[in-house]
Amino acid sequence: MRPQDVIRKKRDGAQLSREEIVFFIDGVTSGSIADYQISALLMAIYLNGMNDAEQEILTEAMLHSGNVLDFSSIAKPKADKHSTGGVGDKTSLLIAPMVAACGVCVPMISGRGLGHTGGTLDKLESIPGYRVNLSASEFEKVLQTVGYAMSGQTAELAPADKKMYALRDATATVEAIPLIVASIISKKGAAGLDAMVIDVKVGSGAFMRDEPRAQKLAHALVKTGNSCGIRTRALLTDMNQPLGRAVGNSVEVKECIQLLRGEVDEGARPVRDLSIELSAHMLVLAHVDDSLAAARDRLQNILSSGKALESFRANVAAQGGDPRVCDEPAKFLPLATESFKVESPRSGFVTGVKTAEIGHAIAAIGGGRVRIDDEIDPSVGFITDVKIGSHINVHDRLGTIYCGDEAKAKEAVQTIQAAYEIGDESFNELLLVKEVINE
Amino acid sequence: MRPQDVIRKKRDGAQLSREEIVFFIDGVTSGSIADYQISALLMAIYLNGMNDAEQEILTEAMLHSGNVLDFSSIAKPKADKHSTGGVGDKTSLLIAPMVAACGVCVPMISGRGLGHTGGTLDKLESIPGYRVNLSASEFEKVLQTVGYAMSGQTAELAPADKKMYALRDATATVEAIPLIVASIISKKGAAGLDAMVIDVKVGSGAFMRDEPRAQKLAHALVKTGNSCGIRTRALLTDMNQPLGRAVGNSVEVKECIQLLRGEVDEGARPVRDLSIELSAHMLVLAHVDDSLAAARDRLQNILSSGKALESFRANVAAQGGDPRVCDEPAKFLPLATESFKVESPRSGFVTGVKTAEIGHAIAAIGGGRVRIDDEIDPSVGFITDVKIGSHINVHDRLGTIYCGDEAKAKEAVQTIQAAYEIGDESFNELLLVKEVINE
Repeated sequence: MRPQDVIRKKRDGAQLSREEIVFFIDGVTSGSIADYQISALLMAIYLNGMNDAEQEILTEAMLHSGNVLDFSSIAKPKADKHSTGGVGDKTSLLIAPMVAACGVCVPMISGRGLGHTGGTLDKLESIPGYRVNLSASEFEKVLQTVGYAMSGQTAELAPADKKMYALRDATATVEAIPLIVASIISKKGAAGLDAMVIDVKVGSGAFMRDEPRAQKLAHALVKTGNSCGIRTRALLTDMNQPLGRAVGNSVEVKECIQLLRGEVDEGARPVRDLSIELSAHMLVLAHVDDSLAAARDRLQNILSSGKALESFRANVAAQGGDPRVCDEPAKFLPLATESFKVESPRSGFVTGVKTAEIGHAIAAIGGGRVRIDDEIDPSVGFITDVKIGSHINVHDRLGTIYCGDEAKAKEAVQTIQAAYEIGDESFNELLLVKEVINE
Repeated sequence: MRPQDVIRKKRDGAQLSREEIVFFIDGVTSGSIADYQISALLMAIYLNGMNDAEQEILTEAMLHSGNVLDFSSIAKPKADKHSTGGVGDKTSLLIAPMVAACGVCVPMISGRGLGHTGGTLDKLESIPGYRVNLSASEFEKVLQTVGYAMSGQTAELAPADKKMYALRDATATVEAIPLIVASIISKKGAAGLDAMVIDVKVGSGAFMRDEPRAQKLAHALVKTGNSCGIRTRALLTDMNQPLGRAVGNSVEVKECIQLLRGEVDEGARPVRDLSIELSAHMLVLAHVDDSLAAARDRLQNILSSGKALESFRANVAAQGGDPRVCDEPAKFLPLATESFKVESPRSGFVTGVKTAEIGHAIAAIGGGRVRIDDEIDPSVGFITDVKIGSHINVHDRLGTIYCGDEAKAKEAVQTIQAAYEIGDESFNELLLVKEVINE
């Protein structure tokens, strides 16, 4: 078999066999298939698609391209949550401690921010001392002692995905559903999960702005996850505005710690609500609770009793961070001392937000990555005072930018001001969870 | 502009602008665009095509990616012929000396054989001493003194094509019409031509087996050639059996020299007929003759007077070959001393030939290349005694294989025997020129 014969077959719209897909992924992993052959196949898959059988085989081949973590020594159900990426989406930082405190093992392999979206690893690194590059044995030890661990994808985990993911950005093949599904499920599957909830974001701050396409992706993720032996559900959730008030790194961690401490701020409530909802589905899939209602009650108690905060504190300590951040987040998290008001250019109602623009503006001041090797400045960020449906008067505060570089900050003020659409008609609040997809 | 933005646009089926195509081809030439990005665009072009405007811009960008030869010091029209490739297709060796002897300058940039097809450069190298890698100044000198020169594509000529051509074979993007057209016309255009005739082969020994697709390719070649300022015609010609009797290298050169010497063998007549026909179109396009009839008469005279042979002899001498090959081809051309009869397994009529199989069989005994870096053995070959429509009795000779390696030769005997389809019904001779395409 030659790589070009596999490429030709997909180019011509035919279904690839198990043998062909496994041959190709083995070649990607070993390096015997050239990058230019991989990218030609990626483009052929982008344009000609894959059916369910091919999708499942591709995902399994990528899942098994490296080590598969084995936590069978931990006698708990293993579950995780994955998000397709958004702006201000910090739910992982709440979900992991909440669900772990309910007796579920959460081996969370997370990513970095790129483009307009943030990344869990970048956020965690704003906690002084916190280490996200754990070795496999450190990861397992933290899991055993704390119940959850947060780490980046190692070279041994789904290496075929790592190679293909790097090529996709440079070859305009990122948005292909079969490739997105295989990438997500192969990484999660290699982490040895029993259950998984996927938060498929849809809206102006999501990679999928269009609801039918997001639904299609969600169905493919659920079907493929289940076929790979992971009980999987997807929630289609709103990403038409930043989730909560904070966008950045330390500002998002602070918002989470405040929620874990029970300091509920109305603007941060969607973060809490969505975290509880995603966690409740995890508990049901992990067979901890029989119903979502029971799971939600359990999670409310875990939060209000402070057990979720204790779980978070134990994780911070176990991963090298300063646990005092849980008691005095404002003291132990970095924040730029200069702040800039973003004011409303007119009176009216917030009718829409160009959410990706806010993400890009925060990346541009150092809160994210424009290029893959950019350094993150954890101290910069944006806190919004409004959401869709808010009434506002001219010159009122839309939000505040924290940034040490005045010239850059002023550009961000402009961009973010323009990202808020202010109209005359009042506007209903958006539904946070649009749909639950089980199959 | 980023390469992935150009790839994305073609991926989405949009028309690329001049700026985008030129940016991409400049990046291919300079090496600033990675191979994996080039191959992703090639696949997107394969699947989404290009319209006439894009085709013309792509071809011109590739044509100007390196040096464009300038033979303005030679006060003659410049014309060439190109073939899309076949088995036993040796017309270049007749056309160049015939047309040059009619006062046209023929700067012929030729290729090597690959897969089932032979290459003019390989054939010429079976003449002892003949050099095909001329420098630009040597090439021009031979053109000035002899009227025609035969050489390979140098690194300076259409380098973007060279890079893309190498990637296409490994990425299953060879057969895309926009890429075939750009490759052919960019190389020919860089040789500074006024006129060009393209022999588009169709049938069991051609890359295009299917006539409608060959027609589509021919129209695209003619349109693009003309838009690049080269008066261009295409002839759709039959490649359902080897052209003439000889398939190999020295055996094909010998067949040509015999035709140039006026020694007409009935089996070789199609080589002579097709060479005259293609040459006649070149003379008309070069404004040497007003009509095909006049051009054909001129060419018959050039052949029978021995002037074409003299032109050939001058070229052989000028390119370092031994000109005595023109007087005693059997003495000066290498030929394997062992020969093997391919006999007919039954009586009947030749109703079809799996021509590519014959090409592959000869490549396998050393007459061609299975891989791009294989060495050629000029002394091996096949001479057929039959053609489609021939009546034959069981055990009669279908042809003879010349090869020093008995084991390999016997495999070739089997393959070639199986390539001839013998049936009971008589079969009309095939038309050599199926169609002339002017626009």
